[in-house]
Amino acid sequence: MYNGVMKKIKIPVEVSARHCHLSKNDLEKLFGIGYELKKMKQLTQPCDFACQETVDIQFGSKKIERVRVVGPVRENTQVEISITDAVGSGIMPPLKLSGDLKGASQVIIIGPKGLIELKEGLIVAQRHLHCATDEANKFGLKSGDKLSVKIEGDRQIIFGNVIVRVKDDYKLCVHLDTDEGNAAGINKVTEGYIII
Amino acid sequence: MYNGVMKKIKIPVEVSARHCHLSKNDLEKLFGIGYELKKMKQLTQPCDFACQETVDIQFGSKKIERVRVVGPVRENTQVEISITDAVGSGIMPPLKLSGDLKGASQVIIIGPKGLIELKEGLIVAQRHLHCATDEANKFGLKSGDKLSVKIEGDRQIIFGNVIVRVKDDYKLCVHLDTDEGNAAGINKVTEGYIII
Repeated sequence: MYNGVMKKIKIPVEVSARHCHLSKNDLEKLFGIGYELKKMKQLTQPCDFACQETVDIQFGSKKIERVRVVGPVRENTQVEISITDAVGSGIMPPLKLSGDLKGASQVIIIGPKGLIELKEGLIVAQRHLHCATDEANKFGLKSGDKLSVKIEGDRQIIFGNVIVRVKDDYKLCVHLDTDEGNAAGINKVTEGYIII
Repeated sequence: MYNGVMKKIKIPVEVSARHCHLSKNDLEKLFGIGYELKKMKQLTQPCDFACQETVDIQFGSKKIERVRVVGPVRENTQVEISITDAVGSGIMPPLKLSGDLKGASQVIIIGPKGLIELKEGLIVAQRHLHCATDEANKFGLKSGDKLSVKIEGDRQIIFGNVIVRVKDDYKLCVHLDTDEGNAAGINKVTEGYIII
Protein backbone atom coordinates (compact mmCIF):
# COMPACT_ATOMS: atom_id res chain seq x y z
CA MET A 1 0.00 0.00 0.00
CA TYR A 2 1.35 3.41 -0.90
CA ASN A 3 -1.08 6.28 -1.00
CA GLY A 4 1.41 9.09 -1.38
CA VAL A 5 1.93 9.52 2.35
CA MET A 6 4.93 7.76 3.87
CA LYS A 7 4.29 6.39 7.35
CA LYS A 8 7.08 5.66 9.83
CA ILE A 9 5.99 3.32 12.61
CA LYS A 10 8.21 2.39 15.58
CA ILE A 11 8.48 -1.34 16.01
CA PRO A 12 10.44 -3.97 18.01
CA VAL A 13 13.11 -5.85 16.07
CA GLU A 14 14.48 -9.23 17.10
CA VAL A 15 17.37 -11.33 15.84
CA SER A 16 16.86 -15.10 15.51
CA ALA A 17 19.92 -17.34 15.73
CA ARG A 18 19.99 -20.63 13.85
CA HIS A 19 17.28 -23.00 15.09
CA CYS A 20 15.20 -26.04 14.29
CA HIS A 21 11.45 -26.76 14.30
CA LEU A 22 10.40 -30.40 14.65
CA SER A 23 7.31 -32.38 13.70
CA LYS A 24 5.92 -34.73 16.38
CA ASN A 25 7.03 -37.72 14.35
CA ASP A 26 10.60 -36.42 13.86
CA LEU A 27 10.82 -35.37 17.54
CA GLU A 28 10.13 -38.99 18.52
CA LYS A 29 12.71 -40.30 16.03
CA LEU A 30 15.35 -37.97 17.49
CA PHE A 31 14.47 -38.06 21.19
CA GLY A 32 12.42 -41.27 21.67
CA ILE A 33 8.78 -42.37 21.60
CA GLY A 34 6.44 -40.16 23.61
CA TYR A 35 9.10 -37.47 24.15
CA GLU A 36 7.81 -33.95 24.89
CA LEU A 37 9.77 -30.71 24.36
CA LYS A 38 10.82 -28.90 27.54
CA LYS A 39 10.31 -25.13 27.56
CA MET A 40 13.44 -23.12 28.38
CA LYS A 41 12.23 -19.61 27.50
CA GLN A 42 9.08 -18.03 26.11
CA LEU A 43 9.70 -16.18 22.82
CA THR A 44 7.95 -12.98 21.74
CA GLN A 45 5.38 -14.74 19.58
CA PRO A 46 2.89 -16.22 22.09
CA CYS A 47 2.94 -19.63 20.38
CA ASP A 48 6.75 -20.04 20.29
CA PHE A 49 9.26 -21.08 22.94
CA ALA A 50 12.97 -21.92 22.98
CA CYS A 51 13.42 -25.51 24.17
CA GLN A 52 16.00 -27.04 26.47
CA GLU A 53 16.69 -29.50 23.65
CA THR A 54 19.32 -29.02 20.96
CA VAL A 55 20.19 -31.13 17.92
CA ASP A 56 23.25 -31.43 15.70
CA ILE A 57 22.81 -30.75 12.00
CA GLN A 58 24.85 -31.85 9.01
CA PHE A 59 24.60 -30.42 5.50
CA GLY A 60 27.15 -30.69 2.70
CA SER A 61 30.55 -31.00 4.32
CA LYS A 62 29.63 -29.12 7.49
CA LYS A 63 28.34 -30.13 10.89
CA ILE A 64 26.97 -27.64 13.42
CA GLU A 65 26.44 -28.84 16.96
CA ARG A 66 23.88 -27.77 19.54
CA VAL A 67 21.29 -26.07 17.32
CA ARG A 68 18.41 -24.87 19.51
CA VAL A 69 15.01 -26.49 19.03
CA VAL A 70 12.06 -24.07 18.97
CA GLY A 71 8.71 -25.47 20.10
CA PRO A 72 5.92 -26.38 20.01
CA VAL A 73 6.03 -29.21 17.44
CA ARG A 74 4.93 -28.15 13.95
CA GLU A 75 3.51 -29.94 10.96
CA ASN A 76 6.89 -29.98 9.19
CA THR A 77 10.45 -30.18 10.41
CA GLN A 78 12.64 -27.29 9.28
CA VAL A 79 16.11 -25.93 10.05
CA GLU A 80 16.91 -22.22 9.68
CA ILE A 81 20.55 -21.08 9.40
CA SER A 82 22.35 -17.92 8.27
CA ILE A 83 24.47 -17.57 5.13
CA THR A 84 27.51 -17.33 7.43
CA ASP A 85 26.54 -20.74 8.85
CA ALA A 86 26.43 -22.15 5.31
CA VAL A 87 29.90 -20.88 4.33
CA GLY A 88 32.34 -23.74 3.85
CA SER A 89 29.62 -26.40 3.52
CA GLY A 90 29.40 -26.39 -0.26
CA ILE A 91 25.63 -25.83 0.13
CA MET A 92 23.77 -22.54 -0.16
CA PRO A 93 20.23 -23.02 1.18
CA PRO A 94 17.55 -20.92 -0.53
CA LEU A 95 16.11 -17.76 1.02
CA LYS A 96 12.60 -18.81 2.07
CA LEU A 97 9.78 -17.82 4.35
CA SER A 98 9.46 -20.19 7.30
CA GLY A 99 7.13 -23.05 6.33
CA ASP A 100 7.86 -22.85 2.58
CA LEU A 101 10.13 -25.85 2.10
CA LYS A 102 9.80 -26.44 -1.66
CA GLY A 103 13.38 -26.38 -2.98
CA ALA A 104 14.90 -26.25 0.52
CA SER A 105 18.28 -27.95 0.94
CA GLN A 106 19.02 -31.41 2.23
CA VAL A 107 19.92 -31.72 5.91
CA ILE A 108 20.61 -34.45 8.42
CA ILE A 109 19.38 -33.83 11.98
CA ILE A 110 20.97 -35.81 14.78
CA GLY A 111 19.37 -36.28 18.20
CA PRO A 112 20.29 -38.41 21.23
CA LYS A 113 18.11 -41.34 20.09
CA GLY A 114 18.39 -41.26 16.32
CA LEU A 115 18.79 -39.22 13.19
CA ILE A 116 16.61 -38.08 10.31
CA GLU A 117 17.52 -37.07 6.80
CA LEU A 118 15.36 -34.43 5.15
CA LYS A 119 15.45 -33.99 1.38
CA GLU A 120 14.01 -30.47 1.74
CA GLY A 121 14.51 -29.06 5.21
CA LEU A 122 17.21 -26.39 5.33
CA ILE A 123 16.56 -22.71 4.56
CA VAL A 124 17.88 -19.22 5.17
CA ALA A 125 14.87 -17.41 6.64
CA GLN A 126 13.59 -14.38 4.77
CA ARG A 127 13.23 -11.36 7.01
CA HIS A 128 9.64 -10.78 7.98
CA LEU A 129 7.22 -8.79 10.07
CA HIS A 130 4.82 -10.52 12.44
CA CYS A 131 1.61 -8.53 12.68
CA ALA A 132 -1.74 -9.17 14.42
CA THR A 133 -4.83 -9.00 12.20
CA ASP A 134 -6.24 -5.86 13.83
CA GLU A 135 -2.90 -4.01 13.51
CA ALA A 136 -2.55 -5.17 9.90
CA ASN A 137 -5.96 -3.70 9.16
CA LYS A 138 -4.99 -0.45 10.89
CA PHE A 139 -1.79 -0.16 8.81
CA GLY A 140 -3.45 -1.35 5.60
CA LEU A 141 -1.21 -4.44 5.40
CA LYS A 142 -1.93 -8.02 4.41
CA SER A 143 0.09 -11.26 4.45
CA GLY A 144 2.68 -11.29 1.67
CA ASP A 145 3.07 -7.51 1.44
CA LYS A 146 6.63 -6.22 1.41
CA LEU A 147 7.87 -3.21 3.28
CA SER A 148 11.10 -1.60 4.47
CA VAL A 149 12.47 -1.47 7.99
CA LYS A 150 14.98 1.13 9.14
CA ILE A 151 17.41 0.60 12.02
CA GLU A 152 19.28 3.63 13.38
CA GLY A 153 22.83 3.64 14.77
CA ASP A 154 26.46 3.50 13.61
CA ARG A 155 25.47 0.70 11.25
CA GLN A 156 22.29 2.42 10.12
CA ILE A 157 20.47 0.27 7.61
CA ILE A 158 17.21 0.01 5.70
CA PHE A 159 16.13 -3.58 5.05
CA GLY A 160 13.92 -3.91 1.98
CA ASN A 161 11.69 -6.87 1.05
CA VAL A 162 10.52 -7.50 4.62
CA ILE A 163 7.56 -9.86 4.18
CA VAL A 164 4.39 -9.23 6.21
CA ARG A 165 2.91 -12.24 8.03
CA VAL A 166 -0.51 -11.68 9.60
CA LYS A 167 -2.18 -13.88 12.24
CA ASP A 168 -4.70 -13.04 14.96
CA ASP A 169 -2.35 -13.63 17.88
CA TYR A 170 0.96 -12.39 16.39
CA LYS A 171 2.81 -9.75 18.35
CA LEU A 172 4.09 -6.86 16.21
CA CYS A 173 7.78 -7.59 15.63
CA VAL A 174 10.36 -7.75 12.83
CA HIS A 175 12.50 -10.90 12.68
CA LEU A 176 16.02 -10.80 11.24
CA ASP A 177 18.70 -13.48 11.14
CA THR A 178 22.13 -13.09 12.76
CA ASP A 179 23.85 -11.84 9.57
CA GLU A 180 21.25 -9.12 9.24
CA GLY A 181 21.38 -8.29 12.95
CA ASN A 182 25.18 -8.05 12.93
CA ALA A 183 25.19 -5.96 9.75
CA ALA A 184 22.90 -3.52 11.57
CA GLY A 185 24.92 -3.71 14.80
CA ILE A 186 21.95 -5.08 16.75
CA ASN A 187 22.51 -7.03 19.91
CA LYS A 188 19.51 -9.41 19.93
CA VAL A 189 16.72 -6.86 20.39
CA THR A 190 16.29 -3.27 19.28
CA GLU A 191 13.75 -0.88 17.87
CA GLY A 192 13.32 0.08 14.26
CA TYR A 193 10.82 1.77 12.02
CA ILE A 194 8.65 0.21 9.40
CA ILE A 195 8.31 2.43 6.38
CA ILE A 196 5.04 1.93 4.53
CA MET B 1 26.45 17.28 -0.01
CA TYR B 2 22.75 17.47 -0.72
CA ASN B 3 21.59 20.10 -3.16
CA GLY B 4 17.99 18.97 -3.49
CA VAL B 5 18.74 16.58 -6.34
CA MET B 6 19.29 12.95 -5.40
CA LYS B 7 21.98 11.25 -7.47
CA LYS B 8 22.11 7.48 -7.93
CA ILE B 9 25.51 6.29 -9.13
CA LYS B 10 26.26 2.68 -10.08
CA ILE B 11 29.29 1.35 -8.24
CA PRO B 12 31.17 -1.92 -7.61
CA VAL B 13 30.70 -3.44 -4.14
CA GLU B 14 33.13 -5.90 -2.57
CA VAL B 15 32.97 -8.02 0.57
CA SER B 16 36.11 -8.31 2.71
CA ALA B 17 36.52 -11.41 4.85
CA ARG B 18 38.46 -11.20 8.12
CA HIS B 19 42.09 -10.26 7.53
CA CYS B 20 45.24 -8.87 9.07
CA HIS B 21 47.61 -6.03 8.13
CA LEU B 22 51.17 -6.22 9.51
CA SER B 23 53.87 -3.67 10.22
CA LYS B 24 57.38 -4.57 9.01
CA ASN B 25 58.52 -5.05 12.57
CA ASP B 26 55.62 -7.35 13.48
CA LEU B 27 55.98 -9.28 10.22
CA GLU B 28 59.56 -10.11 11.23
CA LYS B 29 58.49 -11.12 14.74
CA LEU B 30 55.87 -13.51 13.29
CA PHE B 31 57.71 -14.85 10.22
CA GLY B 32 61.40 -14.22 10.91
CA ILE B 33 64.02 -11.51 10.29
CA GLY B 34 64.08 -10.21 6.72
CA TYR B 35 60.86 -12.01 5.77
CA GLU B 36 58.93 -10.56 2.83
CA LEU B 37 55.21 -11.09 2.12
CA LYS B 38 54.39 -13.26 -0.89
CA LYS B 39 51.62 -11.97 -3.16
CA MET B 40 48.80 -14.47 -3.78
CA LYS B 41 46.27 -12.21 -5.47
CA GLN B 42 46.00 -8.55 -6.43
CA LEU B 43 43.04 -6.82 -4.74
CA THR B 44 40.93 -4.08 -6.31
CA GLN B 45 42.79 -1.24 -4.64
CA PRO B 46 46.07 -0.97 -6.59
CA CYS B 47 48.15 -0.88 -3.40
CA ASP B 48 46.63 -3.98 -1.75
CA PHE B 49 47.21 -7.68 -2.29
CA ALA B 50 46.14 -10.86 -0.53
CA CYS B 51 49.22 -12.72 0.69
CA GLN B 52 50.04 -16.40 0.72
CA GLU B 53 50.66 -15.99 4.45
CA THR B 54 48.05 -16.52 7.15
CA VAL B 55 48.23 -16.05 10.91
CA ASP B 56 46.21 -17.35 13.84
CA ILE B 57 44.54 -14.81 16.10
CA GLN B 58 43.38 -15.07 19.68
CA PHE B 59 41.08 -12.61 21.46
CA GLY B 60 39.07 -13.17 24.62
CA SER B 61 38.26 -16.87 24.78
CA LYS B 62 38.34 -17.43 21.03
CA LYS B 63 40.98 -18.49 18.56
CA ILE B 64 40.57 -18.20 14.79
CA GLU B 65 43.08 -19.99 12.59
CA ARG B 66 44.37 -19.10 9.14
CA VAL B 67 43.44 -15.42 8.98
CA ARG B 68 44.63 -14.03 5.63
CA VAL B 69 47.39 -11.40 5.68
CA VAL B 70 46.84 -8.43 3.35
CA GLY B 71 49.97 -6.69 2.07
CA PRO B 72 52.01 -4.62 1.66
CA VAL B 73 53.28 -3.95 5.19
CA ARG B 74 51.72 -0.92 6.85
CA GLU B 75 52.74 1.44 9.58
CA ASN B 76 50.53 -0.31 12.15
CA THR B 77 49.43 -3.90 12.61
CA GLN B 78 45.67 -4.36 12.63
CA VAL B 79 43.19 -7.25 12.54
CA GLU B 80 39.71 -6.82 11.05
CA ILE B 81 36.95 -9.31 11.92
CA SER B 82 33.16 -9.40 11.67
CA ILE B 83 30.74 -9.29 14.60
CA THR B 84 29.91 -12.93 13.82
CA ASP B 85 33.61 -13.73 14.28
CA ALA B 86 33.52 -12.04 17.69
CA VAL B 87 30.49 -13.99 18.96
CA GLY B 88 31.43 -16.34 21.77
CA SER B 89 34.75 -14.61 22.52
CA GLY B 90 33.50 -12.34 25.29
CA ILE B 91 35.01 -9.40 23.35
CA MET B 92 33.16 -6.99 21.08
CA PRO B 93 35.70 -4.98 19.09
CA PRO B 94 34.69 -1.42 18.28
CA LEU B 95 33.41 -0.37 14.86
CA LYS B 96 36.31 1.62 13.39
CA LEU B 97 37.68 2.86 10.12
CA SER B 98 40.79 0.95 9.10
CA GLY B 99 43.85 2.68 10.57
CA ASP B 100 41.99 4.18 13.54
CA LEU B 101 43.14 1.93 16.37
CA LYS B 102 42.41 4.11 19.41
CA GLY B 103 40.20 1.98 21.66
CA ALA B 104 40.60 -1.12 19.47
CA SER B 105 40.50 -4.46 21.29
CA GLN B 106 43.38 -6.57 22.49
CA VAL B 107 44.52 -9.38 20.20
CA ILE B 108 47.28 -11.95 20.05
CA ILE B 109 48.65 -12.78 16.60
CA ILE B 110 50.48 -16.06 16.14
CA GLY B 111 52.86 -16.76 13.26
CA PRO B 112 55.22 -19.63 12.47
CA LYS B 113 58.21 -17.95 14.15
CA GLY B 114 56.64 -16.08 17.06
CA LEU B 115 53.67 -14.22 18.46
CA ILE B 116 52.79 -10.63 19.22
CA GLU B 117 50.28 -9.19 21.64
CA LEU B 118 48.59 -5.94 20.65
CA LYS B 119 46.84 -3.85 23.29
CA GLU B 120 44.85 -2.07 20.57
CA GLY B 121 44.73 -4.03 17.34
CA LEU B 122 41.34 -5.65 16.75
CA ILE B 123 38.42 -3.85 15.06
CA VAL B 124 35.22 -4.41 13.15
CA ALA B 125 35.74 -2.38 9.97
CA GLN B 126 33.27 0.38 9.26
CA ARG B 127 31.82 0.15 5.77
CA HIS B 128 33.42 2.62 3.43
CA LEU B 129 33.73 3.88 -0.10
CA HIS B 130 37.13 4.12 -1.79
CA CYS B 131 37.16 7.02 -4.21
CA ALA B 132 39.89 8.60 -6.36
CA THR B 133 40.44 12.33 -5.89
CA ASP B 134 39.17 13.29 -9.34
CA GLU B 135 36.00 11.22 -8.93
CA ALA B 136 35.44 12.65 -5.45
CA ASN B 137 35.64 16.14 -6.94
CA LYS B 138 33.19 15.16 -9.68
CA PHE B 139 30.68 13.81 -7.12
CA GLY B 140 31.27 16.62 -4.63
CA LEU B 141 32.59 14.22 -1.99
CA LYS B 142 35.45 14.49 0.50
CA SER B 143 37.10 12.12 2.98
CA GLY B 144 34.89 11.56 6.01
CA ASP B 145 31.59 12.26 4.21
CA LYS B 146 28.84 9.71 4.83
CA LEU B 147 26.51 8.39 2.18
CA SER B 148 24.10 5.53 1.54
CA VAL B 149 24.60 2.52 -0.70
CA LYS B 150 21.72 0.50 -2.10
CA ILE B 151 22.01 -3.15 -3.12
CA GLU B 152 19.17 -4.68 -5.15
CA GLY B 153 17.96 -8.30 -4.92
CA ASP B 154 15.90 -10.60 -2.68
CA ARG B 155 17.79 -9.16 0.29
CA GLN B 156 17.53 -5.60 -0.94
CA ILE B 157 19.23 -3.27 1.49
CA ILE B 158 20.34 0.32 1.91
CA PHE B 159 23.50 0.72 3.99
CA GLY B 160 23.71 4.10 5.70
CA ASN B 161 26.82 5.69 7.23
CA VAL B 162 29.16 4.54 4.48
CA ILE B 163 32.31 6.60 5.05
CA VAL B 164 34.04 8.17 2.06
CA ARG B 165 37.83 7.65 1.81
CA VAL B 166 39.58 9.68 -0.89
CA LYS B 167 43.09 9.06 -2.26
CA ASP B 168 44.61 9.77 -5.69
CA ASP B 169 45.00 6.14 -6.71
CA TYR B 170 41.89 4.59 -5.11
CA LYS B 171 39.60 2.66 -7.39
CA LEU B 172 35.91 3.47 -6.91
CA CYS B 173 34.50 0.66 -4.75
CA VAL B 174 32.38 0.09 -1.64
CA HIS B 175 33.82 -2.28 0.97
CA LEU B 176 31.53 -4.29 3.25
CA ASP B 177 32.37 -7.01 5.75
CA THR B 178 30.99 -10.56 5.54
CA ASP B 179 28.03 -9.90 7.87
CA GLU B 180 26.98 -6.99 5.70
CA GLY B 181 27.58 -8.93 2.49
CA ASN B 182 25.56 -11.91 3.73
CA ALA B 183 22.73 -9.68 4.98
CA ALA B 184 22.53 -8.26 1.45
CA GLY B 185 22.85 -11.71 -0.17
CA ILE B 186 26.08 -10.71 -1.94
CA ASN B 187 28.51 -13.38 -3.04
CA LYS B 188 31.85 -11.52 -2.81
CA VAL B 189 31.33 -8.95 -5.57
CA THR B 190 28.26 -7.14 -6.86
CA GLU B 191 27.04 -3.77 -8.02
CA GLY B 192 25.21 -1.23 -5.97
CA TYR B 193 24.23 2.40 -6.10
CA ILE B 194 25.58 5.20 -4.04
CA ILE B 195 22.89 7.65 -3.11
CA ILE B 196 24.17 11.17 -2.63
